[in-house]
Amino acid sequence: MLAQANINIEAIVDAVIKELQDQLFIMVEASGRHVHLSREDLNALFGHGYQLTPVKDLSQPGQFACEERVTITGPKNSIQNVVVLGPERSKSQVEVSLTDALVLGIKAPVRLSGDIKDTPGLKITNPKNGVSIEIKEGLIVAKRHVHMTPEDAKRFHVSNGSSVKVKVFGERPMILEDVDVRVDKNFSTAMHIDYDEANACGYTKDTKGMIIVDE
Amino acid sequence: MLAQANINIEAIVDAVIKELQDQLFIMVEASGRHVHLSREDLNALFGHGYQLTPVKDLSQPGQFACEERVTITGPKNSIQNVVVLGPERSKSQVEVSLTDALVLGIKAPVRLSGDIKDTPGLKITNPKNGVSIEIKEGLIVAKRHVHMTPEDAKRFHVSNGSSVKVKVFGERPMILEDVDVRVDKNFSTAMHIDYDEANACGYTKDTKGMIIVDE
Repeated sequence: MLAQANINIEAIVDAVIKELQDQLFIMVEASGRHVHLSREDLNALFGHGYQLTPVKDLSQPGQFACEERVTITGPKNSIQNVVVLGPERSKSQVEVSLTDALVLGIKAPVRLSGDIKDTPGLKITNPKNGVSIEIKEGLIVAKRHVHMTPEDAKRFHVSNGSSVKVKVFGERPMILEDVDVRVDKNFSTAMHIDYDEANACGYTKDTKGMIIVDE
Repeated sequence: MLAQANINIEAIVDAVIKELQDQLFIMVEASGRHVHLSREDLNALFGHGYQLTPVKDLSQPGQFACEERVTITGPKNSIQNVVVLGPERSKSQVEVSLTDALVLGIKAPVRLSGDIKDTPGLKITNPKNGVSIEIKEGLIVAKRHVHMTPEDAKRFHVSNGSSVKVKVFGERPMILEDVDVRVDKNFSTAMHIDYDEANACGYTKDTKGMIIVDE
């Protein structure tokens, strides 16, 4: 009878812990350098009407990593093998870390994805056919952000455009401040950081974040 | 009369602000990859009795950057032009970022400087004479830490071995947790972070930190 009771209590504790984890923590994902391409730039680099080849779905519904890789080039160096993410966007955008920007030799601003006005351009090359294009703007260091479902936004008492702190439980624990929240019914809840931030917090795939809402 | 009073008030406000800044904030320094060498390893790489050539004093009294550069090599890649810091140490130690460790292809642990037991070794080469040595241990990712004078330790209510949080005021503000405090009368008060952490917080030379002591 007692053994039976113990088993039940353990099962309940496990269920409560899992529920608390789901309620308190969000998934943290580290985004590597990548490129989004417009239809026009896809045509130029890969040929008219070329269709990207999805190889892996990303956490955000509808977003995917492609088989296609490009080389990006700044005044100092090139970085090869940069993954193209789909689907196509209205404007091409290249997202790198500050470490990468230093390698390229370009001063890239920290911006939210999509906010590319007056950002630097750079050269993008398709290594398979040797074709290069110069984009006039679009190089950014992605500002850390949280994608969130409307349900989770309600639960965390935040809304689209909120700024929060996120405590990240890695080997090198830290609290990231000034984290933008983007709420959309098509999102899946996840925090996106870049590889500088990932390395700074000792990121692994199991790293979780806890949202701290400013009073 | 009023103008005179204004000038005095401004001067006082400036002095108060400067004093507050000095009292509340500490200097943050980003440490690039570097190598400390033992006498034995210096002898092997540069020749018996070789004396390092100081080119720049560092913030910590007695520590200096040298003219000498070495190449460090892991199973995946080499990194060239790594600065040697002086003076000699009892054991050689190589400090890199997690980004560098990935380039080298070695899993390097996050450790405080000097704590190198059971850390990985690697190859160090003097590119001028082609001589290489293999160190058996000594590769670390430096754990962030604050060097502090005994006077500042008293002021911040911390002691040698304390762990504090430090709020870093960069373009990408964050609070670094689990920061070790090392107090010594030969230290100058400064926080040391690596380049992953520097990039993650949008570090510039003017970046300051504010110590937050846990209750």
